Amino acid sequence: MSKGVKVIFLGGVGEIGKNMYALEYENEIIVLDCGLGFPTDDMPGIDCVVQDLTYLVQNKDKVRGYIITHGHEDHIGGIAYALGQVPAAVYGSRMTLALIENKLREHPNVKAKAIVVKARSVVQIGNFSIEFVHVNHSIAGCFALSVTTPVGVIFFTGDFKIDYTPVDGQVTDLTRIGEIGRKGVALMMCECTNAERKGHSISETEAGEQLDKVFAANSDRRLFVGTFASNIHRVQQLLDLAIKYNRKLVFCGRSMINVTDTAIKIGEMRLDEKERGRIIDITHIGNYKDGELLIVLTGSQGEPRSALVRMASGDFPKVQIGANDTIVFASAPIPGNEDAVNQVINNLIKCGAEVVYESLAGVHASGHAYEDEFKLVISLLNPHYFVPIHGEYKHMKKNVALAARLGVNKRNIIIPDLGDVLELSMNNLKRVGCIPSGAVLIDGSSSGSADASVLRDRQTLAEEGICIVGIGYNLGTGEITSGPDVATRGLLYSDELLENMQEARLAVLECLKNANLNLAKDDIDEVRTQVRRDLQTFFQKTVKRRPMVITMLQGHK
Amino acid sequence: MSKGVKVIFLGGVGEIGKNMYALEYENEIIVLDCGLGFPTDDMPGIDCVVQDLTYLVQNKDKVRGYIITHGHEDHIGGIAYALGQVPAAVYGSRMTLALIENKLREHPNVKAKAIVVKARSVVQIGNFSIEFVHVNHSIAGCFALSVTTPVGVIFFTGDFKIDYTPVDGQVTDLTRIGEIGRKGVALMMCECTNAERKGHSISETEAGEQLDKVFAANSDRRLFVGTFASNIHRVQQLLDLAIKYNRKLVFCGRSMINVTDTAIKIGEMRLDEKERGRIIDITHIGNYKDGELLIVLTGSQGEPRSALVRMASGDFPKVQIGANDTIVFASAPIPGNEDAVNQVINNLIKCGAEVVYESLAGVHASGHAYEDEFKLVISLLNPHYFVPIHGEYKHMKKNVALAARLGVNKRNIIIPDLGDVLELSMNNLKRVGCIPSGAVLIDGSSSGSADASVLRDRQTLAEEGICIVGIGYNLGTGEITSGPDVATRGLLYSDELLENMQEARLAVLECLKNANLNLAKDDIDEVRTQVRRDLQTFFQKTVKRRPMVITMLQGHK
Repeated sequence: MSKGVKVIFLGGVGEIGKNMYALEYENEIIVLDCGLGFPTDDMPGIDCVVQDLTYLVQNKDKVRGYIITHGHEDHIGGIAYALGQVPAAVYGSRMTLALIENKLREHPNVKAKAIVVKARSVVQIGNFSIEFVHVNHSIAGCFALSVTTPVGVIFFTGDFKIDYTPVDGQVTDLTRIGEIGRKGVALMMCECTNAERKGHSISETEAGEQLDKVFAANSDRRLFVGTFASNIHRVQQLLDLAIKYNRKLVFCGRSMINVTDTAIKIGEMRLDEKERGRIIDITHIGNYKDGELLIVLTGSQGEPRSALVRMASGDFPKVQIGANDTIVFASAPIPGNEDAVNQVINNLIKCGAEVVYESLAGVHASGHAYEDEFKLVISLLNPHYFVPIHGEYKHMKKNVALAARLGVNKRNIIIPDLGDVLELSMNNLKRVGCIPSGAVLIDGSSSGSADASVLRDRQTLAEEGICIVGIGYNLGTGEITSGPDVATRGLLYSDELLENMQEARLAVLECLKNANLNLAKDDIDEVRTQVRRDLQTFFQKTVKRRPMVITMLQGHK
Repeated sequence: MSKGVKVIFLGGVGEIGKNMYALEYENEIIVLDCGLGFPTDDMPGIDCVVQDLTYLVQNKDKVRGYIITHGHEDHIGGIAYALGQVPAAVYGSRMTLALIENKLREHPNVKAKAIVVKARSVVQIGNFSIEFVHVNHSIAGCFALSVTTPVGVIFFTGDFKIDYTPVDGQVTDLTRIGEIGRKGVALMMCECTNAERKGHSISETEAGEQLDKVFAANSDRRLFVGTFASNIHRVQQLLDLAIKYNRKLVFCGRSMINVTDTAIKIGEMRLDEKERGRIIDITHIGNYKDGELLIVLTGSQGEPRSALVRMASGDFPKVQIGANDTIVFASAPIPGNEDAVNQVINNLIKCGAEVVYESLAGVHASGHAYEDEFKLVISLLNPHYFVPIHGEYKHMKKNVALAARLGVNKRNIIIPDLGDVLELSMNNLKRVGCIPSGAVLIDGSSSGSADASVLRDRQTLAEEGICIVGIGYNLGTGEITSGPDVATRGLLYSDELLENMQEARLAVLECLKNANLNLAKDDIDEVRTQVRRDLQTFFQKTVKRRPMVITMLQGHK
């Protein structure tokens, strides 16, 4: 057995949005993050996308724990699925574990020991010593990881930015990062999301200052602010503004209520005892004037069943949007959501509301580091080996160039592929193999994972439709005694039906005659093939579609 | 009959990308533009989306002509479909008509008289006198329309920008626009695409200057530039750069070859006789050094089968992308295409190529006016009535505010809805009704338009799959003589098949027994209903899906 530490890319590269990595040394594996992806257009009917866990399942006995950097879906979304197959303890901040707990409530069969850790605390798991380093991000309770292993320190950034004026006053722990760097870092695994952006990201409190201006300018109007529930610091600022401008605060939308509830409970959101009454239920908004209300809600990404989307389309009985409402989008659309967000904005404007989406988009405080921040952290850590993670290939390439410019030897840099196994030893980092990897599609019952063939069938069904042929025949003579009956779904439009159904029936009869096949003589498969071929040709000619064809043959005595 | 001119919104509002309007006076209708839309995610299997033409078909005899502003798909894409149902002459620039001609080649049954018009020329069609006004846009041969009617002048901007340094030297005809304004404009119909952008759009020649820098910096490398085929002025600049830097030029991709061919033929692209040899076929690139080649190609939007996309994924035998290639994206991604474009960029970088996509995106010369340009044209025209067109609601709202600030009486502004009929009379503009409108989905054979029910079926098939039951029975006794046989598609994954198929069969048997139905007694429909209900319940329970269920009953004597 090798003496090195294996660095395993279960996720985090190739497909964006699903972070999952593992470190393995002798008989011990620790898993870093456990994210979830969302289905793309070519995955009809799929609910979610998780990692291929084959390797972890095969090495179940080695897995000592899940170390989670923070509570965003792309870092915790797959945890229930993973724990169900490979149980182990889960380590994270109070906020992270609270969000995981919310999630596990939907999976009563999955149990896990949750271990709360704090910034600068160190957890020893076998040969791994994991220190949790406070970093800024668009969620509270976020850590980078400094993992001391028998072959050196691996610094894993997770998602981070450097915010010199954060809402909770806690800047990314640069001092500690510097100390870790001075003692020597063998390998830095560095996120790359905003690698293309020059300069320094904007502080969360600047977003707050822009929001303050909106409050000042809308004193007599009802205010709605859409944002991510998990962006606790943004919500904190809204709560502070509600107090400053003496408005009652309504949280609206299931995740907004759940997450803020949790955050207040564990102390991540500050709310003085005397201000508890400021938060009211949506059913009580009728008791207040427009200028006394602030509604903080989900839906700023145009999510289909969210509170804001339903209000915009008049489908939210408790709130009617009108001319005295100002709606603020306090988060920029995630790429891919632009159309949905635009539609909500257009609908709100049609309702007569004022919508603020540009001025705030301009100061969007991203949760991810820009180039100057990467420079700072890479310089402080001064790692011997560098591996970019969590970004598209072009982003990884940018950060690789940056690391090289800052002094990392080009031969000490590897851009990983999904499924790669790298080995870090005392004087080397190299690719030593790969494990089964890729997207596992989860559909309906959580037991089964989706086959490619079923998805292909679904796409054919969706694009071309289906034609079903029923034939009854005499098992002795092969004579057709019923049918051919033809039914179609998703194939023929009403004005095509009449003409084509009768002809399709004739095409089947013709096919059976021409083929000179005898059903009684076990030519059944051959009949199916011929019928499919001829009907596909028929529909291609008449309606330019090539449907799936299924023939049901009922033989009787 | 009313004395006014009806302004009819067959398209151009509500759904972006499909421009089509009509002006009607007494027994005359002229149609302005005739665009095409593309299917969205909820339209599986649909090839394209056109306007509802019911009104035009009902008033076929009145339609005197199609007046086309320019040759982009969202202004000409529906022309074959429209001409097929409502034939009339087509008016446009040489470039526009050449592109329409290319399109009609695929529809040999559709014939139309094409009438070439020039800038400042006037066409009299019944009571309408149409003047064509030269404007800048991201395609050559683009007009605004000044339509003199019995109740006043209607100025229709089409798509436009103001480019003071255009590639062909022809600035938007501001002088003529000023003259038209001074004589008096009753109604301005104004595009709104970039209404949210402040300032003035960037000149096309600035994009050319950026491209020049890329040529200068890559003298020994093979150069690829991806752009829209229809952006003739961008391609012209590339041709000029090929001459300046002495490179052979290869056009690659079907539409790139077709459109440049046409543009050179009609003189929209300048190419000296002595430079004809500069354009070579892709099969000859082996005869030249990398630094002697420029390949201009389609695919800058990540279009699935385009030349660039196929090269990026190693699926283009004539060209292998490698370390000595520089690929330039000379057009910004259209919203919605970002993911596809990113994937191409990542693949090209993986092939080892240099990819230039940021620096040029920075100077993206949009084809649409920004706020300052709108101000200028609205001021020059000084219209009495103002109607925004071709933009999302939020964009229309912006331009409406702009028009009001520039002196248009707020009561003289109408934001139209799709299908609206406005009436312009000597002293009024008002909404007087609406016509059948909306998207008509075209699928396969051009004859039929898609029913909602077929699309619903396709979505169910794609999301849930289908279960087919075959039963043979004796017509006399009702006894089941064959089956029930059960087949599924898109429903069960391989690891679910074994267990569920047998049970599904039992569920059908159980159902038939419980229902106490007799097939011989014409209970056939009832049997189908029961089987469907019970099988859906069964699959809901076992795999959490609710498939379509089709029962084929074969009765025999």
